[in-house]
Order: sequence, then C-alpha cells, then structure tokens
Amino acid sequence: MAVYTEVGDEDLERFVGEYDLGPVLSCKGIAEGVENTNYLIQTGSGSFILTLYEKRVAEEDLPFFLGLMEHLAGKAIPCPTPVHGRDGTALRRLCGRPAVIVTFLKGMWPRRIRTQHCSEVGRALAALHIASQDFAMTRRNALSVDSWRPLLEASAQRAGEVQPGLADLLFHELAFLESNWPKSLPSGICHADLFPDNVFFIGDSLSGLIDFYFACNDFLAYDLATCLNAWCFERDRSFNVTKARGMLSAYRSVRAFSDAELTAMPVLARGSALRFLLTRLYDWLHHPEGAMVRPKDPLEYLTILQFHQGVASPGAYGLD
Amino acid sequence: MAVYTEVGDEDLERFVGEYDLGPVLSCKGIAEGVENTNYLIQTGSGSFILTLYEKRVAEEDLPFFLGLMEHLAGKAIPCPTPVHGRDGTALRRLCGRPAVIVTFLKGMWPRRIRTQHCSEVGRALAALHIASQDFAMTRRNALSVDSWRPLLEASAQRAGEVQPGLADLLFHELAFLESNWPKSLPSGICHADLFPDNVFFIGDSLSGLIDFYFACNDFLAYDLATCLNAWCFERDRSFNVTKARGMLSAYRSVRAFSDAELTAMPVLARGSALRFLLTRLYDWLHHPEGAMVRPKDPLEYLTILQFHQGVASPGAYGLD
Repeated sequence: MAVYTEVGDEDLERFVGEYDLGPVLSCKGIAEGVENTNYLIQTGSGSFILTLYEKRVAEEDLPFFLGLMEHLAGKAIPCPTPVHGRDGTALRRLCGRPAVIVTFLKGMWPRRIRTQHCSEVGRALAALHIASQDFAMTRRNALSVDSWRPLLEASAQRAGEVQPGLADLLFHELAFLESNWPKSLPSGICHADLFPDNVFFIGDSLSGLIDFYFACNDFLAYDLATCLNAWCFERDRSFNVTKARGMLSAYRSVRAFSDAELTAMPVLARGSALRFLLTRLYDWLHHPEGAMVRPKDPLEYLTILQFHQGVASPGAYGLD
Repeated sequence: MAVYTEVGDEDLERFVGEYDLGPVLSCKGIAEGVENTNYLIQTGSGSFILTLYEKRVAEEDLPFFLGLMEHLAGKAIPCPTPVHGRDGTALRRLCGRPAVIVTFLKGMWPRRIRTQHCSEVGRALAALHIASQDFAMTRRNALSVDSWRPLLEASAQRAGEVQPGLADLLFHELAFLESNWPKSLPSGICHADLFPDNVFFIGDSLSGLIDFYFACNDFLAYDLATCLNAWCFERDRSFNVTKARGMLSAYRSVRAFSDAELTAMPVLARGSALRFLLTRLYDWLHHPEGAMVRPKDPLEYLTILQFHQGVASPGAYGLD
C-alpha cells in the first residue's frame, strides 16, 4: 500500500485531457495495491481509478490484463473497465510509466468473512471462468508447478530462519506435488489471486472483482482451490467446512465441474498453498529494510498446506 | 502519507450508521496528511473524508480545530466542515481513536506555483483572518518564538551532520529574533501551515483550504509571512518578487494591514523560516529508521532565512 509515483496536477490535467472525461476535480493517491500506484480521481464524468504500473508488472503483459478486463466487463462481470482516450488507446504513459484509467467500482472488501461472502465469490469465479472462455489472448501461469522448485531453491538456505526444518518439509511436499500434479483438467483464464482484498461487496452482494495482474491460463479448479484457501480458513487457521461448502456449491451451480476436477481438489489446494507459501517466504526473506510494504506471514500457508495434506477425499470440503 | 489505522468494513458501517449519510458505498485509505489516517468515503449522500487522529494531534485540541472549521465554513471559507452524527456530536471514536467525518473538497493542490495561485492564497488568508475574528475559542501557538530555543537545543548537538556550523548560525539568528520579535501586532486565528499541499484549486480558482491542525492565535502578519515563504520561493530557492507582490497586494485588498505589520514583515518572515527550519531539522535528525514518511529538507528553509536576513525594507517584497 503505497504511492510510488507522485503525479503533478499539470501532468494529470494533460493526461486526462486526452480522454472524454471532463475536467479533473480531485485526485487522491490511494493506499491500495502493493504492485502499482493508484489514484482515485473525480472528473466531470464521475469517479475513476488511475493506475501507474511500477516495475513489478511486466509491461508486455499489460495488453493481456487490460484486454481481459475489457472482455469480462463486456460480459457483465463486475470488474474495472479500461477507459479509452479519444484516440482509441487505453494503455498510455504518464510520468514515464505505463498508465491506464479504469472505471471505479463501488463496494468494500470484507475484513471478516461470512459464508455468504464465500458463496458469492464461488458464483462470481465460475461466471468469470465461463465469460473468459472466448477470450482470445493467453498468458502462461508463471507461478505454476514448474516454477516452485526454483522459487524454493532461492529461499531454502534461509527458510530455517522462519521455522526450523521448513526447507526439508517443503522439498518433500514439492516432490509429492511434482509427481501428482494433474496432467489434464479443464483449463482457461484464472484470476489466480482472488483474495478478500480483491473482492468488493455492498452489503451481502458482490459488487466488484479487481486486481487482474496475476491472471493467466491454468486449470480452472486450481483457481477455485486458491479461493478455497484464501476465504475458507478462519483467523485461528482452522478450516471452515460450511464456508467451503458454500463456495464450492455456489461455483458448481454456475459451472458444473467434472469428477476429475473434484477428485483433484486436495492436490490442487496443496499446490496453491505451496505457491503462496513460497512467494511469501521469498518476500519475507528478501524484502528490503524499511520497505513500505509489510510482507505477509508465510507460515499461515503452512497450516493451510498441512490441513490439505490430511484430507483423504474431497468430501472434506463439504461436497457430497 | 500513510494509513496508520486499518478500519474494517463492519466497524466503518457501524460508525457511519450513526450519521444521516446513507449507506457506505466505498472507502479508500488516502495517502495524504502526515499526521492522521484519512479515508475518502462515498456514501449515499456523496463524498466525505473520514479522519482518525493519531498520536501527533493532542486530543484536547480537537474541539478547537473542529470548532474553527465549522465556524469558518459557516462564513463561506472553503474548508472541510465537520459532519454531525444524529446525536449532534461531530467528534466521535473509531478503532480506539478520536475520529471525525468532514465534507469533501474538490480540487487539487498545485505542484508548480503560478502567480495567480499566490494571489488567490493571499486573498483567502485575509478572508480567513477576518472570518475568524469572532471565533470564541483560542489556542496558544506552541511553535512560536518562545518554543524555538528548546527546539534548537534538542537538535544543536547533531545539527552539524546536516551542515557544518549550522548550530552556531541558528543560535545567532535565534538571539536576534528573541530581541527583535514584535511585542504587539494585530492578532487572531492563524492557519499557521498554509503550504501548497493544504490549498486546493480547480483551474486557477482556489477551491479549498485544509489541514487546520496547526491553527492557533498569533500575529496575523506572521501567518502571511509563513505563506510568503511557502509560496514565493522557486524550486531553485530564488525569491520571486512578482509572486510576493501578488500575494501581499491580494491580501491587502481584503484586509488592510498597518504600517507596523508591513515594517515587521522581514523579521516575521525570518521567524517563520526559523520555525520550519527547526521542526524540519528535528524531524530530520530524529525520524525513525524505515519510517513511512520521508522528512523534508531543513536546508531549504536556511536559504529562505538567509534571503530575509538580507532584506533591508519590506519594499523587497514588492509593495510600495
């Protein structure tokens, strides 16, 4: 949460002048998004988000992300829609960075998760998976199973600082996952980072999905497993089967999943837990002193991983 | 610029439910205000700022600050107006902190200062001084001349880290100011921190004055001197007499100042330069490692101080 790039009022007026949005009436740097600089701007036409892409997002991926958001918005998925300038271009440059204006979504992300939230997320994820089936672009998942070994190797030597014996435990899990990872399951566009802070609600209703900057092609059920991990564990790290049942059955009511997908759920959930554990572990060990972003606790995902290691069948997730 | 206190969605809904503002539709932590946590919230009634007061603002001063904003807003000074809850109370508590909702002001603060901005600020400051004449509360200026010696003493030993010989130079200036500080000049409510980031414009017109958390009773011309220093020096630290003339003559067109005030301007401007130099020097030497707020350069104000030391008469500020 930070504003990495200060945009001056004159630069902003010049930039927004390239759109049909009317005059800029206010501009506030907002403390959201760990990857980019975001401003909430108000113009004669309403509220918008101005995003400047900082180094962590690869510029060559931006047409995919923006194209996806536009594709989804066109199919009534509530996500930010890139706004085009008068010349037809959505992706521009501001202060030396790639920059875009997207529509503003009302709502707040929930701090205390209720079962109703989980059902709404399951339904919205399934709708996203269906709506993106005819999206023409693809992007490889750079954080899928083949990336985990180099990630773990980059942290293994110092993993013991976080918990003694952690590296051994993770190498053991990694070997299991490399051997047992599904070869073929229904694939498509995954959001791949649908954590609570990326989902807005007004009251009990889902009003927005944001932050598509990890979106990629992968197994759809893997995306669902990521949501299961992100939404269905309590603060004390215990698994809430009611929430899981709510999420999975709501998903299934929109997009029926195959027996193969259901059977793979425990291994997919282990894989997703390892993926977030590994990136958090890396960030934990490598974040610079005095950085403005506090790294997240990798061990939260160790508990989640260990829960799924103990799951004998997908019935543990509340489905028949 | 930071969000020090995370407010959860449920706490927020409960809090805003105590007002007649309709439902909360969004809430973004904004990267403004070094002293407090600020959220831009949108409700059924429009946009508002929710402020949580962190430790640096003394709670016993809040009724003065809020009362002043309300008083000024009632006299058409464009400043945030505290919103009252249904029980009539404006100052409440949220997440264990004093908290208030104020009206949202459109506009942006100018990064590149033009003479027109300086005239607008001069006019608005005079209007503020007049509008607050019948404000009933008072607050001593905790950062006036009698506070500068203890402030300097707290930094003197390490001032040489910033510039060799700085402490001697400042003690010398302090002695001059203590001997020559005006005994009596027209007094009243001063904003006392009217820097460009506290003044909003839409186009060339001033649309808002914010951040009243240094407001206090002091010489009105001292407040004007603070603006002169904050607005009329260029980035290369040269003095722009056209801007100064614009500011002072616009001020005078709204509130005529006496000969005594004009004559005192050079010493008041030196005093105000020393005041900001000293607080910046203290923050520079005492800010914690890895703090989210980058301290401002104290030496910017040394150049400003030295400019005024060379001023023989107030004619140097562009007035006859």
